[in-house]
Formats: sequence, structure tokens, C-alpha cells
Amino acid sequence: MAESGTRRIKLGLVGIGKIARDQHLPALAADGRFELAATASRHATLDGVPGYHDIGTMIAGGHDLDAVSLCTPPDGRYEQAITAIDAGLHVMLEKPPATTLTEIAALAARASAKGVVLFTTWHSREAAGVEPAKAWLQGKRIDAVRITWREDIRRWHPGQEWILAAGGFGVFDPGINALSIATKILPEPMLLKSAWMEVPEGRASPLAAELEMRSGNARVDVVFDFLQTGPQTWDIEIDTDAGTLRLGLGGSILQLPGGEEQKAPDREYPRLYARFAELVASGESDVDVRPLQIVADAFMMAERRVTAPFAF
Amino acid sequence: MAESGTRRIKLGLVGIGKIARDQHLPALAADGRFELAATASRHATLDGVPGYHDIGTMIAGGHDLDAVSLCTPPDGRYEQAITAIDAGLHVMLEKPPATTLTEIAALAARASAKGVVLFTTWHSREAAGVEPAKAWLQGKRIDAVRITWREDIRRWHPGQEWILAAGGFGVFDPGINALSIATKILPEPMLLKSAWMEVPEGRASPLAAELEMRSGNARVDVVFDFLQTGPQTWDIEIDTDAGTLRLGLGGSILQLPGGEEQKAPDREYPRLYARFAELVASGESDVDVRPLQIVADAFMMAERRVTAPFAF
Repeated sequence: MAESGTRRIKLGLVGIGKIARDQHLPALAADGRFELAATASRHATLDGVPGYHDIGTMIAGGHDLDAVSLCTPPDGRYEQAITAIDAGLHVMLEKPPATTLTEIAALAARASAKGVVLFTTWHSREAAGVEPAKAWLQGKRIDAVRITWREDIRRWHPGQEWILAAGGFGVFDPGINALSIATKILPEPMLLKSAWMEVPEGRASPLAAELEMRSGNARVDVVFDFLQTGPQTWDIEIDTDAGTLRLGLGGSILQLPGGEEQKAPDREYPRLYARFAELVASGESDVDVRPLQIVADAFMMAERRVTAPFAF
Repeated sequence: MAESGTRRIKLGLVGIGKIARDQHLPALAADGRFELAATASRHATLDGVPGYHDIGTMIAGGHDLDAVSLCTPPDGRYEQAITAIDAGLHVMLEKPPATTLTEIAALAARASAKGVVLFTTWHSREAAGVEPAKAWLQGKRIDAVRITWREDIRRWHPGQEWILAAGGFGVFDPGINALSIATKILPEPMLLKSAWMEVPEGRASPLAAELEMRSGNARVDVVFDFLQTGPQTWDIEIDTDAGTLRLGLGGSILQLPGGEEQKAPDREYPRLYARFAELVASGESDVDVRPLQIVADAFMMAERRVTAPFAF
């Protein structure tokens, strides 16, 4: 097991793509608890940081790593995580944590057996409005929930064919962010009653989905759409006995009944790394599969319609 | 919480269909640890046993119940189980334990909070050859696994339209029995690599499926077919460094390398109730979601082909 004292956490970053450059690297650079000691990427290196082709050679590179953060695409992440866990390193996983639920369960069991920390991150849960929304909902009666995630796949995922392939989750790739927020702020489990999906001809994963769910006594209606041009929508509205709460822009804007919109700067990834540092210090894992479990429930239960072929 | 001393467990049986009459009632009648105190069924009653229309009125009927056993179809079982748990009763569930993974997780959490036992049964795990197969595999190197489940839906599920509807699991309804055996006897998790399904036009659930999986270093090939006329096949073959083990007839026949076929009388349901009695005595739950988790993994990852319409 990696030691965690007051010294900085020596971290290896695996995967240097857009999410690493936009989010992970700035968050790490601003957090004094971490030292970026090495990277692994098939395609890229960072100036001034020892770079390797893959996680195995990075771990063998003699940097005395304590932890790794995996921001490669989900396919293949399981094997990388096992490599790190078996080397006694703590592991932080981008969302979704793996491609199957069995993989996550296996990683959690292995991390526990090896005495290392596993952290399955859900970055949208760290959006500015989410914690205050959860706190405000405490003790209130929840009557209805509406989750609407409408975005343009061509704008946010240009050319990412894998997202519509088998195991790519389709519109659930962004939609799982909504589910990660909802499972955090709703006090009762989200139980699926029915679902439908629209899958374009020749693709395996959906471009649109609707879920009808229950959470306690509240009906939960979920609409995911990957073909939304014009205004983009990432909203959660919750009707309560004290009025309607609205989380907009993926959880970053909170509007309480009768109040002004509350906005705050985006601190999602700094908060994730702060949490990872706490977990490493305490030796506790944080593995929450609920968002992916709901996706799995939907794939098991959905009626499917085949729609016109889609080209990026 | 229900008391469990040396007195018999007063049990309420919910659902009096084919599986109850064929399996549950004979097993209960032969087990001195249980007393069948009441039943609930919309359509049937048993001579000499107080019968109710639903679980709520059964529990309210004043029979001092300790536990319930649910053998209704999976749709609706969640609500019945919650009713029983909230009344402080131990709960035994037919397979599959619920229609979604989130429902099972919610039941497990509720049972734990209420201090009652929850037992998610997988009857095929109790087939005569399964325990000896697991024991024989201990310490052997497993090289390959072949799971072949081919049966005739018209013969075993005549007119059961629900099985091909959304949430009915299709060929995974019998197939999950194979997965319940495999997850019990294989020492490593079963990780899905790819999957395809054939879904008849106008239906939501598959008539055929193939899964390619890994378990440790072994490749696991799974074939499920619901249109098998002629000989029916429920086989698991496992190649090891000591030869090939074969489990036939759904786990009831075991053939070890160089040995005779081993057969024993079917004791699946007596063994399930014996286990339930032990769990109630010890106050421990037994909740294993792995078989359904693999089904969910397959539905998330599968390539789908639409085939000709199917009529029973």
C-alpha cells in the first residue's frame, strides 16, 4: 500500500486528451497536495513531466508513485486500474468508471483486498449548485422531478463514433451526468418503471431516451436528447411542498423558489481532487455505481425504436 | 424484527402459480423448520391454509408471521418485498430477485435498516452437481469455459408473452440460471467483452444471445437460444489443467475428467429453504446480484439484430 503522510501525493496521470488538458491538469496544478510525477499516453507528453507510452511502463519508471488518475476513454480503463491497484497505487477514475457494472464491482473488491483507495468520480456532482440543492431539499416533500438533458452530439462529440457503438452508452454518456446529480440530491432511490430509446439504424446505442421513474412518492420524468440544435438544456426541476427548485446548466446554476439565480465559478475538478486527497489520507474508498446502475436498468427495460441512419 | 427461536418459522407464501405448486409447497411441507401459516394470491388458495388476495391483507391477517417467500413474477415483487420488510418480516425472493438492479439495491438497504433477512435465491446454484463442481475446481487452472443454454420457449414458456416484452429478459430468463451457476463456481469475476442479441421484430427482449467474456485468464463463451427444438441443452463445460469438467442438465449432472456421470435427486428448493432457515436463525442476509449484473452488462453492450416476428 502506498504511504500517505504529509508529503505530497505523487500522481501519475493516464490519458492526455481534452478532458485532461481542460480539467485535470489545471486542477492538479492548483492543488498543493499533489505532485504530477509522470504521465502515460500513447499520443502525447507534457513538457517537464516524464512521459510513458502506457501505465505499466509509467509505474515501472521509478517515480515512487502513490496514486494514478485515469482519464482515458472507459474502454480499457478496467485493465489500467487493475494494473495500478496491483502495484499498490490509489486510483481515481473519470466517469463512467468502467464499461460494465461487473468491472466496477471487481475493481472495488480488488482495491479493498489490496488496501488501496478507489474513487469513482462523477464530476457533475461537484457543480456549484448541487450541494446547496441537496441541503435545501432536506426535510421537504418531493412531489415531482423533471430531468431534461438536450444537447447537440455534433457540437460536443464531433466525430466520436465510439459513443454510438456498442458499449458507448449513446445519449446516456451525457445523461449519466444528470443521473449522478439526481442520485446525489434525491433522498430515495430512483426506480425505473418504463423506458424507451431511439437507436439510429446501423448503430448500437441511442440518440434519444425517455425514462419514467419513481423516487419515494415522486414521479421522475427523464428526457435525454442528443440532436438538440439551438439552445442546449441540462436542467433538473424538483417540485416540493415549498415550491420548485431548478438546477440549470448541468448543476452550475441553482434557483430556489422566489429567489435569484445562484451562480458560482466552476470548481468541479478542483473539488474532485480535493476529495481524492481526503480519501487517500483517510484510506477510504468512494465507489458509487448508482448512476451506471440506472443506465443498465434502462438498457434492460427499454422499448427500442430504430430511427433514420445518423452521420456526424 | 421477527423473533427466531427454536419455534418454527411462520411463513406466508405469496404467489400460487406453477413454481409454487411444483417446488415451494413440497419443499416447505418436508421442512420441519417452517410452518406455512398463510398465502396470498389473486387467483388461488390452498386447502387448509388461510388465503388472502394480497400480501398486505395477509400480513394484517393476524398470523404472527416471521417471514414471506415471494414466488410471483418479478414485475411487482419489489413493492411486495418492501411491504414485508416494513412489517418486520424476513423475505425470500424467487429469481430474478427484481426487475432492476436499483430495486435490489434498495431492498437490500431497506432490509438492513429494518434488521430483517433478505435472501435472493438462485435455484440452479442448488442443483446436485454445482457444489461438487465448485469444490473440484479449487486450485485448478481454468483455461476455457463454454456455457450453452438452448431450450424451446414454446415448450417451457407457452404463451408467456411477458417474457419477450420490455423487462422480461427474453432468453436471459433461463440464461440467468446458467450465469448464477457460473458466478458461483468460477473463482474470478465474469467480465463481458462483447455481446450480440437477436430480437424479433415488434418485441423488446431477445430470443437469442451470445456473450464473449473473460474470467481470470479463461475465455468464457456463452450461447443462449430460445428456439431449440429437439434435444434441449443446459450445459457448462470448463477446460482445466486437469481435464474438462462438464455440468449437464442445468447443473444436475456432473462429469469429471475420466469419471462416470454423477447424478443425484433434485433438491434445489429443499436446499433453498434450508438455507433460508439458516439465514433467519443467524440474522444474516444473502444478496447476490452478480447474475443480473451480467445480464445488465449484456443489455448495455450488445449489438442487436432484428429478426423475423415471433408468435408463440
